[in-house]
Amino acid sequence: MQLTILGCHSASPKSNAHPTAQILEVKGHLFLIDCGEGTQVRLRQQKVKFSRLKHIFISHLHGDHVFGLMGLLTTFGLLNRKESLCIHGPKGIKEFVEIQLKLSASFLSYKLNFNELTSTTSEVIFEDDLIKIKTLPLLHRVYTNGFHFQEKPGERKLNYQKAVDLKINPVYFNKLKQSKNVISETGEEIDFQKVTEAPDLPKSYSFCSDTSYNPKLIPLISYTNLLYHESTFLASASHEDLAHKTGHSTATEAALIARKAKAKHLLLGHFSARYKDLNLFVKEAQEIFEPASYAYTGLKVDIE
Amino acid sequence: MQLTILGCHSASPKSNAHPTAQILEVKGHLFLIDCGEGTQVRLRQQKVKFSRLKHIFISHLHGDHVFGLMGLLTTFGLLNRKESLCIHGPKGIKEFVEIQLKLSASFLSYKLNFNELTSTTSEVIFEDDLIKIKTLPLLHRVYTNGFHFQEKPGERKLNYQKAVDLKINPVYFNKLKQSKNVISETGEEIDFQKVTEAPDLPKSYSFCSDTSYNPKLIPLISYTNLLYHESTFLASASHEDLAHKTGHSTATEAALIARKAKAKHLLLGHFSARYKDLNLFVKEAQEIFEPASYAYTGLKVDIE
Repeated sequence: MQLTILGCHSASPKSNAHPTAQILEVKGHLFLIDCGEGTQVRLRQQKVKFSRLKHIFISHLHGDHVFGLMGLLTTFGLLNRKESLCIHGPKGIKEFVEIQLKLSASFLSYKLNFNELTSTTSEVIFEDDLIKIKTLPLLHRVYTNGFHFQEKPGERKLNYQKAVDLKINPVYFNKLKQSKNVISETGEEIDFQKVTEAPDLPKSYSFCSDTSYNPKLIPLISYTNLLYHESTFLASASHEDLAHKTGHSTATEAALIARKAKAKHLLLGHFSARYKDLNLFVKEAQEIFEPASYAYTGLKVDIE
Repeated sequence: MQLTILGCHSASPKSNAHPTAQILEVKGHLFLIDCGEGTQVRLRQQKVKFSRLKHIFISHLHGDHVFGLMGLLTTFGLLNRKESLCIHGPKGIKEFVEIQLKLSASFLSYKLNFNELTSTTSEVIFEDDLIKIKTLPLLHRVYTNGFHFQEKPGERKLNYQKAVDLKINPVYFNKLKQSKNVISETGEEIDFQKVTEAPDLPKSYSFCSDTSYNPKLIPLISYTNLLYHESTFLASASHEDLAHKTGHSTATEAALIARKAKAKHLLLGHFSARYKDLNLFVKEAQEIFEPASYAYTGLKVDIE
């Protein structure tokens, strides 16, 4: 599981401060999370293969999270993409895209599927054998979801040499990995635990932006390996009121969520342009939750 | 009159190839022409004072000419702009903007006026004492206009010393500048030509993108000081058919328009990403029209 930050600043893009967009690579999938203006340029800079993107997750319809979407979709069309693409986002995202295609008399070369979200409670929006993705309802000025990406427990790891030594027919190897006992070629029952070890613990990533302090998140993201939580403002600059008024969080509030959810690591983002020193966010958060750092364009995090 | 290129490449933005956007400074006005994705970042890089922008001209609704508009408009709002802004563009531009504001529940701090264009013949869309702007109907896949920015003839230039020597009361100076004879304090009639000289010749700038070869442009832009004409393709690469099919021009066609219109200079732009060497565009154009060059981001042209 690897996260790449394409942009993590609030409001308007600047040369050195790109709006929200991230890539999560997990179990062979490549997911795009939010798509602020200029995201397609950032994707090219990171040498992301556009054809690998099959799902885009949009938290909400504020411009700094979505104004790069149309450019990306039409670029896929110019590249003659054939594979369908699914956009998960708030109700209205379909109209947002389709009206712009209509007004520019543009046709895409591929099918666009929309998963329009309206639920105010967490729901599973994608699932396969290896992962499950659920929404994280957030508290913002407009309908907004975060997203929780959860690996499923894998198969047990087989000690091949031991299995061969115990004269187990290879047709039974998969059964062993699936925690089932088998009979060896000498007629002996073999306990799966004897030749396998427990799989790696499944990992999860939680994306929470934009939101006010929202304790309802805590049970939904508990023990998450990495929590990206917005921290638009600093409490240390006495900007709590500004945060509450605009539906955002302070670094303190992000850290409280991380601590209560027993997250392994907190990654801060969505910084207001008024602050020049991003270390202040980390310093403020670490008063409450030590394993915290700040996001920046180009950052890659291996989620362990 | 000064033109600044913010972007001049076709289709998708890349790190080193920005889509169409330009700033024209003329007689105290600052006009934005087209607004591809990332234009607001380019405006900041050029240190353009956002509050000076009061008119935006959009040629057509293809993404590489308009996907930066919403970001710019909402940034103006975040900066608490109060002065109204006028957007001149094809019918549909109002819906394009308003639906996106509605879907994101965004409100602008300033009034937005729309001048939706539908005419297929050239029309004056802005005029004051000093300049006149008219549309240049283009031949593209969707309804598209270029724009022609024309200075008005200025007042004649007064030789102040001579006027004083001839004992002309200063209250008559303006009359002289406006080509009227006056009576001096000694009762002598003074011919305005005796104390004034002709004003500078009015200058003009013509923006033509995107378009197929369109000879109807020629009388509309004749003797223009600077013609920006798209040249998406090279005839020298045998891409004429591609140009015609997609509603674009070759460098040869752009040069033919420049020559027939007796333009002073031709600036080529809207290059397809398939060509690496932009000198080829200039070389091809100069076979037909010598004073030609290519546009690039950051280029400033003083229109003389």
